[in-house]
Amino acid sequence: MLAIGIDIGGTSIKGAAVTTEGKVLEVFTLPVVKGEDQDVTINKLIDVVNNYIKEQGFKRDELLGIGLGVPGSVDTELGLIGYAGNLGWNKLEIVKMMESGTGLKVRITNDANAACLAEVKFGCARKYKNAIMFTLGTGLGGGAVCNGQLYEGNKGMGTEFGHALLELNGRYCTCGRRGCAEAYCSATALINDAKEAMEKDKSSKLWELAERNGKVEAKTVFDAIKLGDKAAQDSLDLYVSHLGETSLSFFNIFRPEVLILAGGVANAGDDLLKPLKEYVEVRHFGFPKTPRVEIVIAELGYDAGKIGAASLFF
Amino acid sequence: MLAIGIDIGGTSIKGAAVTTEGKVLEVFTLPVVKGEDQDVTINKLIDVVNNYIKEQGFKRDELLGIGLGVPGSVDTELGLIGYAGNLGWNKLEIVKMMESGTGLKVRITNDANAACLAEVKFGCARKYKNAIMFTLGTGLGGGAVCNGQLYEGNKGMGTEFGHALLELNGRYCTCGRRGCAEAYCSATALINDAKEAMEKDKSSKLWELAERNGKVEAKTVFDAIKLGDKAAQDSLDLYVSHLGETSLSFFNIFRPEVLILAGGVANAGDDLLKPLKEYVEVRHFGFPKTPRVEIVIAELGYDAGKIGAASLFF
Repeated sequence: MLAIGIDIGGTSIKGAAVTTEGKVLEVFTLPVVKGEDQDVTINKLIDVVNNYIKEQGFKRDELLGIGLGVPGSVDTELGLIGYAGNLGWNKLEIVKMMESGTGLKVRITNDANAACLAEVKFGCARKYKNAIMFTLGTGLGGGAVCNGQLYEGNKGMGTEFGHALLELNGRYCTCGRRGCAEAYCSATALINDAKEAMEKDKSSKLWELAERNGKVEAKTVFDAIKLGDKAAQDSLDLYVSHLGETSLSFFNIFRPEVLILAGGVANAGDDLLKPLKEYVEVRHFGFPKTPRVEIVIAELGYDAGKIGAASLFF
Repeated sequence: MLAIGIDIGGTSIKGAAVTTEGKVLEVFTLPVVKGEDQDVTINKLIDVVNNYIKEQGFKRDELLGIGLGVPGSVDTELGLIGYAGNLGWNKLEIVKMMESGTGLKVRITNDANAACLAEVKFGCARKYKNAIMFTLGTGLGGGAVCNGQLYEGNKGMGTEFGHALLELNGRYCTCGRRGCAEAYCSATALINDAKEAMEKDKSSKLWELAERNGKVEAKTVFDAIKLGDKAAQDSLDLYVSHLGETSLSFFNIFRPEVLILAGGVANAGDDLLKPLKEYVEVRHFGFPKTPRVEIVIAELGYDAGKIGAASLFF
């Protein structure tokens, strides 16, 4: 059996049929046209999906349905996208539209949830039943699998881990509150930490790398560290302490078997993993008898969204 | 069908058969003898349970099993109590002992988990599928029901909500770390807040009430507020701000339908609920489109432990 998994992104919508073993078949792509009316985009998507099914020769009764992973706020109960900032979408009844346009059952979830589900079903966490994910990107996204099931909370609006409190009355967050983990653990936070460190150290190698690159990115920090730059190292140390404290807090909340890291900062791989594990290991003493939590980097990459969306039917 | 639910406390062990409709039948009690060898206590408990079953005339095949709620750290996988401080128990293989002593299937969970499960199955949260509980006692305990199922985490050691971070580098916690929610939201924290406020205000009514009572308790604070005492009001305001921030943080993490409050401080009922709801309502703006979370006081009282432990089989 198959399900179609669709990963909706800010610049393109990618989908594919995925087997119940997690194999991604032929991929289709629909570019996102900036400023296009949301209903027009969805009608195009319906055409693309219907053509894809025809071209691939899939029989309707071997397709379990269509899963959608959305970068924004979704209401799984009403099947609508509340808002998706990068796409300019607002109160979009996507499930209803796509079900009537394709004749297939349609399910929806947030993109971080989809990625987390994919990694637990078919990726780096397939040994486990309890997993949490942090996506370290522009913001700090979250996903959780509890007792082997995707946990989404009321109407699918839970696991907003970026807006868990890290510091009472702390840094201002984009959500309007203060002290949210997102303001400390997102890629944006690491970049801001680095920019502050640069300002204090005009001889930092970060200046040169940033000029060559046109801007400071998470990668710039890791590159500068390889050149022995102290300002970059200091910003990573600060970032790791914040991500470490957040991780420890979530270990106590969920006590998952595994924490999965994804998103821009996680692309640094071992350069992030090693200091983070070191930070966590020696501060784990609060519950010395509790099981350690493995920390791993997501392994499905760009396929995670499609696989996870399809997995809503597996 | 029935299951026997047993609530293990620091001074007595209470149990009862509970019907699958949540009705608590005849209760049995075994007093805890301080300093008694743990194996001796469990063998006594086995006798009490076997006699109870005989006296009540239950048939073995109408009993689904025995559930245990334990005030301490349990390993649900190995079926053992890691430690239960108040009882002096340590590495106690309680499930194995009780299964062989009674011939019934035995399951175990932490007492806060049991209480949370009971309230969702048969108490104040029975309308809901996603619920979290804070027990505001000596410590801050936690429980969670996710997708209608008790969520316990790896080996049953999750939902230690008291050790979620509230303030980076904040107050010292009994766990050895800093800034844990327990150091701000437990009954102990409220009492400490009140003691600090008293020290600063020698004319506070708290002095008189504390002397009459022999000590400051959570109730002392609420009693003094009724007499118009400012120091007491200030300590409650501080406490409510901390509990409010913790609640908001957990709303973003779980987005449950309901937050259940239990334990000593929750006995204040509306005197706690009203200011807490007010605090949360106006600070909920981070996610204006997300569903509000109901906040309620647990309603099953002393029966919650027994019902929840039995519910491990329902």
